[in-house]
Amino acid sequence: MAIVPEPVLVVGSVAVDAIITPRQTRDACPGGSAVFFAMAASYFAPVRLVGVIGDDFPDGTLEDLRRHGVDLEGLQRIAGGKTFRWKGRYHENMNQRDTLETHLNVFENFEPKLPASYRKTPFLFLANIQPTLQLDVLEQAGQARLVGMDTMNLWIDIAREDLARVLAKVDVLTINEEEALQLSGEHNLVRAARTIQGLGPKNVVVKRGEYGAMLFHGDDVFVTPALPLDEVIDPTGAGDSFAGGFMGYLARIGDLSGEHLRRAMIYGTVLASYCVQGFSYEAMDHLTLADVQRRFDEFSALTDFSRAKLA
Amino acid sequence: MAIVPEPVLVVGSVAVDAIITPRQTRDACPGGSAVFFAMAASYFAPVRLVGVIGDDFPDGTLEDLRRHGVDLEGLQRIAGGKTFRWKGRYHENMNQRDTLETHLNVFENFEPKLPASYRKTPFLFLANIQPTLQLDVLEQAGQARLVGMDTMNLWIDIAREDLARVLAKVDVLTINEEEALQLSGEHNLVRAARTIQGLGPKNVVVKRGEYGAMLFHGDDVFVTPALPLDEVIDPTGAGDSFAGGFMGYLARIGDLSGEHLRRAMIYGTVLASYCVQGFSYEAMDHLTLADVQRRFDEFSALTDFSRAKLA
Repeated sequence: MAIVPEPVLVVGSVAVDAIITPRQTRDACPGGSAVFFAMAASYFAPVRLVGVIGDDFPDGTLEDLRRHGVDLEGLQRIAGGKTFRWKGRYHENMNQRDTLETHLNVFENFEPKLPASYRKTPFLFLANIQPTLQLDVLEQAGQARLVGMDTMNLWIDIAREDLARVLAKVDVLTINEEEALQLSGEHNLVRAARTIQGLGPKNVVVKRGEYGAMLFHGDDVFVTPALPLDEVIDPTGAGDSFAGGFMGYLARIGDLSGEHLRRAMIYGTVLASYCVQGFSYEAMDHLTLADVQRRFDEFSALTDFSRAKLA
Repeated sequence: MAIVPEPVLVVGSVAVDAIITPRQTRDACPGGSAVFFAMAASYFAPVRLVGVIGDDFPDGTLEDLRRHGVDLEGLQRIAGGKTFRWKGRYHENMNQRDTLETHLNVFENFEPKLPASYRKTPFLFLANIQPTLQLDVLEQAGQARLVGMDTMNLWIDIAREDLARVLAKVDVLTINEEEALQLSGEHNLVRAARTIQGLGPKNVVVKRGEYGAMLFHGDDVFVTPALPLDEVIDPTGAGDSFAGGFMGYLARIGDLSGEHLRRAMIYGTVLASYCVQGFSYEAMDHLTLADVQRRFDEFSALTDFSRAKLA
């Protein structure tokens, strides 16, 4: 049976990042949740992107995205505006970081508008933006077969009611471990995920960085480690790349059963592992689906054990 | 083929712990690395224990250990002495703890002496004690087929040379993630484990608490999450219970191939998961091997995914 991947629409930030790691510094890297998501998902399915940039956004990045088959009709360019800028410094262990600067610029007044051609996109991902904007997008593309979303501590703090309204309408929430605890008010991750499922999303994907991820799918639980790497160059975008691999795989397969949700977790893991091996999306930029599958197989081998009964 | 489990010898601390968790407090729990290890390993193989206690150690605990088939000939009781006491408080997340009190008592002058009947024990585990004492034990039981050891930040800080002498002689090191980084001077866990393998142990088991564990076995790497639990009562002893499940399984099977080392990691995971579900060894005290196997199967189901190729 031939696979016909369905399109995935992502709405999120498009940014220029300045990144300081213990060993290297980059002044201007393409970044933003929508960019990482799109790059990762593009290995599996056609991607449509909604976001906003200023005049200063590098043409080369737009070319990279187009080369990945990403439809940019929904990317607004504001004449005379500057793109969202973020600057951060990673600690020696690469797991913690400090935000040094945030300039919202054109992102401050972002109003996502879906081109007519995007409105029936079957797979929709609301990356981490203000919950009211996520609701806006849902009104424009509410017929999606699978809606995923991400969020962050800021919205849990200052926009909890709006966030609850979005949560009530989505199928999948991807969220960091600490944010899951914060959102739920629990100290235990299993309970946190159950509480969050009670707010709406049947599927909760908890991202644990270098420790892997968990999927709560109805009553089912799936837990996976991350791929051990002997060098991490830049963790920026790993979570969005995970989401891109996860949603992209599902859009390709079109099967939302538990078996495929679990496999989607592994493809998310694989894309996140590529992401952190370079600055920006550099290490995700020139892969083939065969490379992705090779790493999936490698991950399989790293985690497999004999499930035989004890003699 | 009938399985004839070989005996496992553990040398380590035997303690009385005072434990404060966010929800409960216990003034006097049986504890110590050798006790947790012995309880966990006892489900798989006969266990021999070398340690020291004072007059104050509860008879009930000795009876519990004997009921588990643990040979206590090597347990010294010092007349007029007091048992090693530790008091700690766990934080709300149950992953961090503060040591409030440590009284070495009879443990301060502990000199492990192996009864003649113990000297040819094929599986030996040197739990976390002073490296010079670990060396002492190795001289007394150096013919073991598999020697495992644990250590802690204190010995890395103040007895690094002695520790290096032990490391050069063992087959398996079990060590916490932070301690692996400290011992190796690396910031990356994969590199840390490779560096540690260079110090002697062909097998390095990195314990990551609620995030699971990794096994570096020659050039092979295996990574596993922990069992997700919706309630943790008392994490004390989880690492030693992991080691007990790991070594106990290998002693039962007698096969040290990569396949069985990987399975041993899962049995370690299973015993650690039982350990944290009660104070002291309470939740590990009345299991059957069928219970252990049931949880192994449950863990299998929680982590399994289809390893098929991408269509």
